[in-house]
Amino acid sequence: MEISANDPRLKSWVDVPQGSDFPIQNLPFGVFRTESQLPRVGVAIGDKILDLKALHILGYLENLPFRLEDFLADSLNPMMKHGKKASRDLRNRISKLLRSDMPDLRDREHHVKQVLVSQSEVQMLLPIRVGDYTDFYSSEDHARNVGTMFRDPAKALLPNWKHLPVGYHGRASSIVVSGTPINRPMGQVNPSDDTPPTFKASGQLDFELEVAFVTFDGKPMGQRISTGEADDYIFGLMLFNDWSARDIQRWEYVPLGPFLAKNFGSTVSPWVVTLDALEPFRVPGPVQDPEVLPYLKYEGNKNIDIHLEVGIIPSNGQETIVSRSNYKHMYWNMTQQLAHHTVGGCNIKCGDMMASGTISGPTEGSFGSMLEIAWKGTKPVAMTDGSTRNFILDGDNVVIRGYAEKEGVRVGFGKCEGVVLPAIEF
Amino acid sequence: MEISANDPRLKSWVDVPQGSDFPIQNLPFGVFRTESQLPRVGVAIGDKILDLKALHILGYLENLPFRLEDFLADSLNPMMKHGKKASRDLRNRISKLLRSDMPDLRDREHHVKQVLVSQSEVQMLLPIRVGDYTDFYSSEDHARNVGTMFRDPAKALLPNWKHLPVGYHGRASSIVVSGTPINRPMGQVNPSDDTPPTFKASGQLDFELEVAFVTFDGKPMGQRISTGEADDYIFGLMLFNDWSARDIQRWEYVPLGPFLAKNFGSTVSPWVVTLDALEPFRVPGPVQDPEVLPYLKYEGNKNIDIHLEVGIIPSNGQETIVSRSNYKHMYWNMTQQLAHHTVGGCNIKCGDMMASGTISGPTEGSFGSMLEIAWKGTKPVAMTDGSTRNFILDGDNVVIRGYAEKEGVRVGFGKCEGVVLPAIEF
Repeated sequence: MEISANDPRLKSWVDVPQGSDFPIQNLPFGVFRTESQLPRVGVAIGDKILDLKALHILGYLENLPFRLEDFLADSLNPMMKHGKKASRDLRNRISKLLRSDMPDLRDREHHVKQVLVSQSEVQMLLPIRVGDYTDFYSSEDHARNVGTMFRDPAKALLPNWKHLPVGYHGRASSIVVSGTPINRPMGQVNPSDDTPPTFKASGQLDFELEVAFVTFDGKPMGQRISTGEADDYIFGLMLFNDWSARDIQRWEYVPLGPFLAKNFGSTVSPWVVTLDALEPFRVPGPVQDPEVLPYLKYEGNKNIDIHLEVGIIPSNGQETIVSRSNYKHMYWNMTQQLAHHTVGGCNIKCGDMMASGTISGPTEGSFGSMLEIAWKGTKPVAMTDGSTRNFILDGDNVVIRGYAEKEGVRVGFGKCEGVVLPAIEF
Repeated sequence: MEISANDPRLKSWVDVPQGSDFPIQNLPFGVFRTESQLPRVGVAIGDKILDLKALHILGYLENLPFRLEDFLADSLNPMMKHGKKASRDLRNRISKLLRSDMPDLRDREHHVKQVLVSQSEVQMLLPIRVGDYTDFYSSEDHARNVGTMFRDPAKALLPNWKHLPVGYHGRASSIVVSGTPINRPMGQVNPSDDTPPTFKASGQLDFELEVAFVTFDGKPMGQRISTGEADDYIFGLMLFNDWSARDIQRWEYVPLGPFLAKNFGSTVSPWVVTLDALEPFRVPGPVQDPEVLPYLKYEGNKNIDIHLEVGIIPSNGQETIVSRSNYKHMYWNMTQQLAHHTVGGCNIKCGDMMASGTISGPTEGSFGSMLEIAWKGTKPVAMTDGSTRNFILDGDNVVIRGYAEKEGVRVGFGKCEGVVLPAIEF
């Protein structure tokens, strides 16, 4: 009988340090380059990267549908064009090649040298050439917090919120890989609708703790994807920081939604953790009351237990963890988001990215944005270094980390981080 | 002295029928294919298409930076990657080759046969591989009409409207070329917030009369494009129908904007009319009061006088023109839209599309959507065939036409049309 690539008993002949995000049960995909080489696709294992371009050339990926150009590429899109089954077969093949009891690659030292690279020696690139980017708003605690702060606390959730996964289209061009600095945006702000606006650097720069998923090619335009089919169109997940300028947002967002408050940059982690690798960590979602419409009903456990945390590291290096949340808190799950997105006929393509919206938990320590953590500036956050924060300051590095853990196996995402640089004035 | 490609005295040796949208002063770019050939780039002239792939092979495009692959392509993007100057030089070269007084191509009958194709013999494809799609909301009359219908008529414009060009991100994957049928979307509707929503085919399917522009690669993320620089990043314009489901929109759009109400499909005309070809038709824009912030100020005439009309053709073929509007009515012009879009650091890329928002004029006959024309269903439109319309019915073909005209020269866009098919039920 085939041993599952997720089996907690599996070990790799590649050394995986204690606490690593990347044991053999994970095998996330990313794109990297070294100083002297073109970008290529790799899979993380411990502190190393398995170079799939080299692996392909050496013949280890025979009888799979991939061509050299699928791995000698500056994004995962060419590989993902082959769809769910092929990418699953690829992960299974890699799992076998890396298992401690499989000698095929293990015992060929000259091959091992060619296919393993140290993560410390490479630059990770944006893994996805993002087609369309959609951001949902699917955490009830987040929606309730925001509604309480800005509207009537007794009617914190808007009437549509529990009937459909509210979402909106975002900007794909400014999604960048972890480690890319973000300039504080300039923009129009106006604390009062009765005065003229002013143009200035945002004074309320915030992070949003999110998880994003990336899709395979979907069905032709006009055809919907059901909740039962949705998983077949999802390749994997990443950590996602949807940077937000709250003061710009307040003034611009009526009536058509956020625009410049969000499109100056979003940060994504470099490793795409496959949905397959996360299967062991499925948990039930919240009871949905009122009952949802038939097209939003689903079967099975569709939430995922992923521990999330956000740290702020000022330029002095003294990190403060400001949030500990969990992806399992989502009210609307990915299958519902995808079913809703396509129910009117909207087509999805290989490389589309869909983010969860800010993931807040039910308690104060688990809120997913500074807006909520410092409660609109009324509860400044005490930092390790003695300073306080209502929002993000220039020089702050915001770091999101995430992992699922069960039976001694930790399937992690690595880091999603970005330093805020001062605004570029005229 | 060089004769301008826009000179009204120019004639082509290719026959251009009276009233054609495509005289030698236009030369719009598109992508076409015949049954037996791969997609390629062409330029419209009269009833013909000049095949740029063939022209390149025959050596007529020497000393320009283009490669064969830029024209043997399924979108204009590779050609546009060369930027404004190269595309302007290309249009000027084509103008010279087609001028009646230039014998180089005219007198080589065997070459002419290879480079000219009848428009009636080809299929036009979506000209742009759209990266990000943004929709603005820049017609004052449209915003005022909608505000009057749905809010306080005395405060029809929201406080931000005259201070910034309101815009939002839309869905790029479902932008299709003229002639592609659009299925009526299914979706959640809810006339009252106090009852549960129902799932049904939209009963308020609408068109939106818009003009879109397409961009070259912009500056790196973080850097803004000024109003003075904006024209250098705009390749050309197209007619655009931003299909909208008003009943779905009403229920879903708070607080983050339209989503499924818009993303089931948008239709674009196949020919991209260059901004260069439209220069002779520049006109002053409206006086902007209150004064705009410095980054939104501009010099020169930045509006364009483009006549627009919308016809509805039911399946019986009897067309009714339901709107005659003009692009010159825009309150915010393209240079302001692009300056605003990038002022916070958002980067633009080759192939991004930015639509105007519904273009309504000041009078009843000039409104750009059925919502306004039939005034929320209170003034049904009398059709030529004796029927009436509040919104679009299954089987209706909605046709947008547009052209600029001056000194006997008509620079037109062709048609942007789409037939509405019944919803695909479960």
